[in-house]
Amino acid sequence: MLEIISKNNNKIKEAYALKMKKTRLEKGLFLMEGFKNLEMALAHGVVKTIFTSVPLSKVAEDIEVYKVNMDLIKKLASSKNPEGVVFVSEILKPRKKKNEYHKNIYLDRINDPGNLGTIIRSAAAFNYDAVILAKGSVDLYNEKVLASTKGSIFLIDVFYDDLANYKKSHKIIVSTIDKNSSPLSHLPKYDNFVLVVGSESHGVSEEYLHLADIKVNIPIDAKIDSLNVAIASGILMYHLK
Amino acid sequence: MLEIISKNNNKIKEAYALKMKKTRLEKGLFLMEGFKNLEMALAHGVVKTIFTSVPLSKVAEDIEVYKVNMDLIKKLASSKNPEGVVFVSEILKPRKKKNEYHKNIYLDRINDPGNLGTIIRSAAAFNYDAVILAKGSVDLYNEKVLASTKGSIFLIDVFYDDLANYKKSHKIIVSTIDKNSSPLSHLPKYDNFVLVVGSESHGVSEEYLHLADIKVNIPIDAKIDSLNVAIASGILMYHLK
Repeated sequence: MLEIISKNNNKIKEAYALKMKKTRLEKGLFLMEGFKNLEMALAHGVVKTIFTSVPLSKVAEDIEVYKVNMDLIKKLASSKNPEGVVFVSEILKPRKKKNEYHKNIYLDRINDPGNLGTIIRSAAAFNYDAVILAKGSVDLYNEKVLASTKGSIFLIDVFYDDLANYKKSHKIIVSTIDKNSSPLSHLPKYDNFVLVVGSESHGVSEEYLHLADIKVNIPIDAKIDSLNVAIASGILMYHLK
Repeated sequence: MLEIISKNNNKIKEAYALKMKKTRLEKGLFLMEGFKNLEMALAHGVVKTIFTSVPLSKVAEDIEVYKVNMDLIKKLASSKNPEGVVFVSEILKPRKKKNEYHKNIYLDRINDPGNLGTIIRSAAAFNYDAVILAKGSVDLYNEKVLASTKGSIFLIDVFYDDLANYKKSHKIIVSTIDKNSSPLSHLPKYDNFVLVVGSESHGVSEEYLHLADIKVNIPIDAKIDSLNVAIASGILMYHLK
């Protein structure tokens, strides 16, 4: 295993550059940390390069593995106390055929990285087929998003697409805070649906409201404006699963 | 309205000191920001001092109001783009009689401020009577907790207490990831209960598991370890409300 000791090494610089969205898009790569995430990424066959401060069991020959010290790990990682491994992965691609996406959640411009990551984690937990993102959402490979997915990013397809592409094939169920929409408890079960959830501050945009087959709300106390979007998504996904 | 221009002014120093838990406990006061929060705190009758960069409508005579510039607002506030008002409030006290706490959630050592604040917001949205905290939870008046409550801290009682005090009067429903416990969908409704949720990394402690009348789990995919604790709490509270 080759050892890198300088932060000016090209491999380190190239990996560090992936902290920027622009570089991630250009290279089709992203940076992630942690042993459990590495294990899941390896099972997924997307790992290109590993930087590790501890010995690793054997990995496939086409993966570059470099020994580094904790200072370099800390430079590349985003958590305060990284575990000692950082790796470069290929951007993930959808793995299912078009007609295999039955249960989906569509996120309209979610801005908070923690919310996006947590919604992905919930969607994977409830066996959804995809988390689909509208343009204008926080970047999926933002390090805070990745951290809050807790590895579930490797268990569910997450991709950008236009909601209109699902209008013919799926029930479009739009979450709103409008008390005149159906309360969640009245909602029947569907086999093919896209649950649409809007941004923290603006809700679902007009464009997507027009595509709704059903509008639904989670009844809450009149003194409270809204639920946190990840909480509302969790409750809705649990119900519709 | 008196104007303060120096960051060395005693009123500013006293308010700034409330960023520390130790000072909050000593003084029985905490620091908060934002117009909506101020409005709710005023309605609650707990505001002692207001620092504002913009003219305010008249407030009660026993409240001190100081005009300050945005530099001082930024010093006292915790958000990146504060709205122009920061205030000092009395620590909140429970407002109900013992026998009026019917629907409650008990949090066993929640560490993440965002999770605690979000759970308080959900509990208020679902008309719970109290959020009760075990010792060892993140401090309620931590500024990140307060920010993520979105003002709901003034709408629901939140206090520290021992779970054992509720054993005789309430059904103790403990949330677990144990697949052998009752799935949530099998759970009946209760009039008097305490829903117990454990820490992000350790779940509910043994001490509280022993007090359980019912153990419940939210069924999830076997490949996922757990839901985020605020998501699990949201789903459970919605169901039990």
